[in-house]
Amino acid sequence: MTRTVLAGVDIGGTTTQVVLCDPDLGVLDRADAPTPAADGGSAMVGAALDCVRLLLGRTSPRLLGVGVGAAGVVDARAGRVLVASDSFRGWAGFAVTAAVEEALGVPAFLDNDVNAFLRGEATAGSVAGEAHVLGMMLGTGVGGALWLDGTLYDGPHGAAGEIGHVPGFGDLACTCGGRGHLETLASGRAIAARYAERTGHARTAREVAEAAGAGDVDALAVYEAAGTAVARALLVTAGLLDVTTVVVGGGLSRSWALLEQPIRATLTGEPPVSGHPVHVRPAGLGADAVAIGAAARARAELGLLPGQVAGIRQG
Amino acid sequence: MTRTVLAGVDIGGTTTQVVLCDPDLGVLDRADAPTPAADGGSAMVGAALDCVRLLLGRTSPRLLGVGVGAAGVVDARAGRVLVASDSFRGWAGFAVTAAVEEALGVPAFLDNDVNAFLRGEATAGSVAGEAHVLGMMLGTGVGGALWLDGTLYDGPHGAAGEIGHVPGFGDLACTCGGRGHLETLASGRAIAARYAERTGHARTAREVAEAAGAGDVDALAVYEAAGTAVARALLVTAGLLDVTTVVVGGGLSRSWALLEQPIRATLTGEPPVSGHPVHVRPAGLGADAVAIGAAARARAELGLLPGQVAGIRQG
Repeated sequence: MTRTVLAGVDIGGTTTQVVLCDPDLGVLDRADAPTPAADGGSAMVGAALDCVRLLLGRTSPRLLGVGVGAAGVVDARAGRVLVASDSFRGWAGFAVTAAVEEALGVPAFLDNDVNAFLRGEATAGSVAGEAHVLGMMLGTGVGGALWLDGTLYDGPHGAAGEIGHVPGFGDLACTCGGRGHLETLASGRAIAARYAERTGHARTAREVAEAAGAGDVDALAVYEAAGTAVARALLVTAGLLDVTTVVVGGGLSRSWALLEQPIRATLTGEPPVSGHPVHVRPAGLGADAVAIGAAARARAELGLLPGQVAGIRQG
Repeated sequence: MTRTVLAGVDIGGTTTQVVLCDPDLGVLDRADAPTPAADGGSAMVGAALDCVRLLLGRTSPRLLGVGVGAAGVVDARAGRVLVASDSFRGWAGFAVTAAVEEALGVPAFLDNDVNAFLRGEATAGSVAGEAHVLGMMLGTGVGGALWLDGTLYDGPHGAAGEIGHVPGFGDLACTCGGRGHLETLASGRAIAARYAERTGHARTAREVAEAAGAGDVDALAVYEAAGTAVARALLVTAGLLDVTTVVVGGGLSRSWALLEQPIRATLTGEPPVSGHPVHVRPAGLGADAVAIGAAARARAELGLLPGQVAGIRQG
């Protein structure tokens, strides 16, 4: 019997991560490669395809489809990147799904990486089965996505979920040109910058987390400010959308022990006006979340309900 | 030929406003009465019913249904008030639609007043036909509601839209017990309080507006702070939901000339990160908005599409 699989691809700024999943989204195998971000869209998709082919070559399963999650603004319907950060060359405008479909001969689907992260966590991760969820990725920047009524909500222009770039979080200048955005306090870049301002020392967010673990009061204060700001963002979401389940991922979420206490303290001191408590969970799928979420998108688009697919697999 | 009509009822803290609409939501007639808020649910609904009967008695139309909009937290499905402010006695728990249906013999529907306001404006008012709208009522407090994909979005616990009570708007204490909520800057109560703090003079929001119109710098500053805060709330909504159309009603919106300039200045200086401009419109239905929106809810629940109903009316 030939096993049927879905491939999930996460094209990140430095690493491309690929998983093969069974149709229940269990990870069967994984591979990664450096993202050739400076070499253009064909090279980036090519690196991902090399990983997919490597994995397919090991067990020769039948590939049903491919989901791709990518940083930046994407047109999820057209399968094309719209806006990419400066670190990606030749990526904006690239027709990702067309390239994948031509190479592999199966349907392919493109999502923004934060949307894919949330879809993964809401389908197979720490908030699996929840109908209404805010997803936050605290990485170099802060990304957000919304899962409403059991589906991704991307808004009338496809731009919903940008909790990292709304005002109300102090008055610091944001990389986007705005002021007082969540990203100025709760991103990896912000952790490093705020720590440097307090101490004069250049440290990465992870080094600041290690210092906090060792009792460095400046490091603790920087993470406390980040956690407090995250809690305020959750209160905004709870107030405006009545969404009270939140999953937090991204590199900063590895320092969950430092974030959790100020988040919980703030939510205890300032509960949502509705009275419904906010449930905050760290991401459950780790580095696979975006790739699994991308595979979940492919599964949903292909109309493969879990039960149906299990039938195919075993038939 | 007997004309068919819908009744819309707005049970406010001081006044109950009733309209009779044709099935296209054109207002045929209106009446109002003081709300007997201290006398209990039966008295309040009774006052509304008196207005409906008065209007029906004038032309003897055929009443298709009744929509009721009421302040407070309501269970729109059960037609019952859940939480009411202290100024309403015997209102929390009152089964509004059952009382109306028993008295009039037609189907009745209950909505929160802010939801009804937004439904009215999005159906027959200044944002008619828009699919995605934030509704804000700047009254004694600040109420909010969301119209997403052409329907009211009330969230998993029926508590969505509370833009008036999310943090990020300074640090003043709010009536709800929170701090830094929009309501501390952009409500009628806040206008009066902030003006009194600056000047030592007790003035109503309307008096402060008159003073601003006469060039009083403190009054102008208080309205400017209100408008700036409203704009920030619109940026939060645009960022999180990608909703960029906003309708502003409530008593404070009568001072639109004072609010519009700081709203537009803030939105020009801090555009939404998506790049999609925010369109802000003052309410178009005036004091009828809640009642018309309540009638629109009845029309929608009764399955009366505008065209169908026009056919009934003319048939």
